[in-house]
Amino acid sequence: MALTVVGSVAFDSLETPFGERERILGGAATHFSLAASFFTRVNAVGVVGGDFGEPEWDVFRRHLIVTDDIEVVPDGKTFFWKGRYDYDMNTAHTLDTQLNVFETFAPKLSESSRNAEYVFLANIQPTLQREVGVQCKNAKFVAMDTMNYWITSAKDELTETIKSVDCIIINDAEARQLTDEPNIHKAARKILDFGLKAVVIKRGEYGATLFTKDQFFVVPAYPLESVFDPTGAGDTFAGGFMGYLASHDEITESILRRAMIYGSVMASFNVERFGTERVDALDYPEINQRFTDFKRMTHFDDIPFERATVA
Amino acid sequence: MALTVVGSVAFDSLETPFGERERILGGAATHFSLAASFFTRVNAVGVVGGDFGEPEWDVFRRHLIVTDDIEVVPDGKTFFWKGRYDYDMNTAHTLDTQLNVFETFAPKLSESSRNAEYVFLANIQPTLQREVGVQCKNAKFVAMDTMNYWITSAKDELTETIKSVDCIIINDAEARQLTDEPNIHKAARKILDFGLKAVVIKRGEYGATLFTKDQFFVVPAYPLESVFDPTGAGDTFAGGFMGYLASHDEITESILRRAMIYGSVMASFNVERFGTERVDALDYPEINQRFTDFKRMTHFDDIPFERATVA
Repeated sequence: MALTVVGSVAFDSLETPFGERERILGGAATHFSLAASFFTRVNAVGVVGGDFGEPEWDVFRRHLIVTDDIEVVPDGKTFFWKGRYDYDMNTAHTLDTQLNVFETFAPKLSESSRNAEYVFLANIQPTLQREVGVQCKNAKFVAMDTMNYWITSAKDELTETIKSVDCIIINDAEARQLTDEPNIHKAARKILDFGLKAVVIKRGEYGATLFTKDQFFVVPAYPLESVFDPTGAGDTFAGGFMGYLASHDEITESILRRAMIYGSVMASFNVERFGTERVDALDYPEINQRFTDFKRMTHFDDIPFERATVA
Repeated sequence: MALTVVGSVAFDSLETPFGERERILGGAATHFSLAASFFTRVNAVGVVGGDFGEPEWDVFRRHLIVTDDIEVVPDGKTFFWKGRYDYDMNTAHTLDTQLNVFETFAPKLSESSRNAEYVFLANIQPTLQREVGVQCKNAKFVAMDTMNYWITSAKDELTETIKSVDCIIINDAEARQLTDEPNIHKAARKILDFGLKAVVIKRGEYGATLFTKDQFFVVPAYPLESVFDPTGAGDTFAGGFMGYLASHDEITESILRRAMIYGSVMASFNVERFGTERVDALDYPEINQRFTDFKRMTHFDDIPFERATVA
C-alpha cells in the first residue's frame, strides 16, 4: 500500500542545552516521510526553494521516498524555522519563522500520489488539507494533524476538514482547545463524534493515547534519560503510525495498537539526536528491539485476584 | 501474610466542583488500610481523639482491619484537614490543618503489628518512620511514602529512612525534589541507588511507574471522565499495591507488576466519590473487572515488523 503525505519541508536552526545546529533538514513532511519509509512506499508532497540542496535530497533518496511532488521554486527560499529549547524540552521557543515558498504552497498531486490508499495531511491550512483529501479518491484511511494557530484562526474550516478524515493525530493541549473540554477523555469523545474512526492524542513525555469507538489504548513514552532534540517528534510518531498501517491492507484494532507502538518507537529514536540524524541512520533490528522494549515495559499477566488464596 | 500500616487517621472537610463534605473519614492510614483490606489482613497504627465515633470505627470493622494499635486520646481531637480542589483536580489547596492528637503521635506497635511481613510507613516524620521499620523484625518488604515538607525540612533524616526500606512510593514532583534531578528516569535511578528494591513514582492523571534494578514498568491511569475527589488516591494506590504484595509470600517482578495494576485499580475507584465512600462499597467482581480493563487498555500483540510483508 502507498502512503501520501502533504506538509512542510524546511530548514531548521536549533538551540538546545545539548548543542546547536544551523539550517538542518526539517519540516513535518520530512520527519513523517522518513519514519514512514521504513514501513511502506511514501509519496511526499511539498515545496522547497532553490536553496534545497543535494545533501537534503539524498536523505529522501536513501529511504526511497518519492519526491516527484515536492515542487522546487528555483528563485524561492525554503521554509525556515529557528527555535530554542531550554531544559524543559516540552516547549519550543520560536526565534524566527520565514515561510518563504511555503507561504503560497498549493499542493499538486501526481496521479501516483492521488492513488495512495493511505494519506496524511500534516499541519497546513485546513482548507488546503481538505482539498488534498478530496483528490485522493482511493484513500482507505486519511489522517491529519493541525495546530493551535488554526484552532484559533480557522475553526470552522478546521472542523469541516476534521469531519472529512478518518483519524486526527494531535497533542493534548490542542484536543482541549479544539473542544473547550479540559478532560482529555471527554475531549477525545467529542472529536470522535465528528465521525472519525480514531483519535490519537500525543502527550509528550507521557506517551500517546488511541481512542476508537469502543476502545481506549495507552502507550507510555519510551524512557529516555536525555531528550536531545524534540523537533519533529510528533511528525515522526505520525510517520511510524501511518507507515505501519499502510503496510497492511485492512485496519483492525489490533493493527492500530501496534501502529501506536511503532509510532512511539520512531518518535523515541527521533529525539535522540538532532533533526533527522537518528532516524536516517536506523535499521530494522533496532526498530524491532525497541518495539519489544515497549512490550516489556507494559506487559503484565492477567491473573484475577482470588480472595481464597489469601493466607 | 499480614500488613501493618502506620500513618494518619483524620477528618477531612472537602470542597470540589462537584460538592462539599464536612468532617468525613480520611487520613493516609485510613485510605491505605481500606484498599489493602481487600487483599490481606491489615493492622492499622495511628491515633485519634475522643471525637472519633462509631460510624468511623464501623468502616474499619466492616473491612476486618485490626485497629488495636489506633490509640484513642479521649480528651484530644482527631487530626483535621480542610481542602479545596478547583477544576484542576491535580492540586489540593489547603484551607485549614489542625494536627491535634497527631502532633505528638508516637506509634505504639503491638506484637501482632510488629510481626507483620509487610509494612507501609505512610507520610509521617522520617525518624518516626525509621523507628517503626526497625521494630518490625519479621518484615520482608517495607515501603514508605513521604512529602515535600520532609524533603525540605528533614532531608538527612529522610535519606536515612529511605536507605532503610525496600520501596518508596512517591509522586513525580517529590522524586525530582528529592534528587535535584528533573528527568524522572534519572531521579528514580538515583533513589534506587540508595539500595532500594523498587521505586514507584505516582504521576496523577498519567498513571504510575515502577522502577526496579533491571526493569521499568508503566501503568496508565484509568480513563475517568470525572474525578470526583482525589483525596487519598495516592494512599489508596499504595494500599492496593502493598495489599496485593502481602497476599503472596514472595515478591517477583511479575507480582510487583500486578501490584501496580491493583494499586491503580483501587485508586481509580477512590476518586469516583468522596472520601472512603466508593472503596468502602467495593466488591471483588468490580475489582477484577477493572483489572481486566487495565489489561485491555494496554495490551498489544508482540509481532515484529517484517519488511518482506510490505506490498
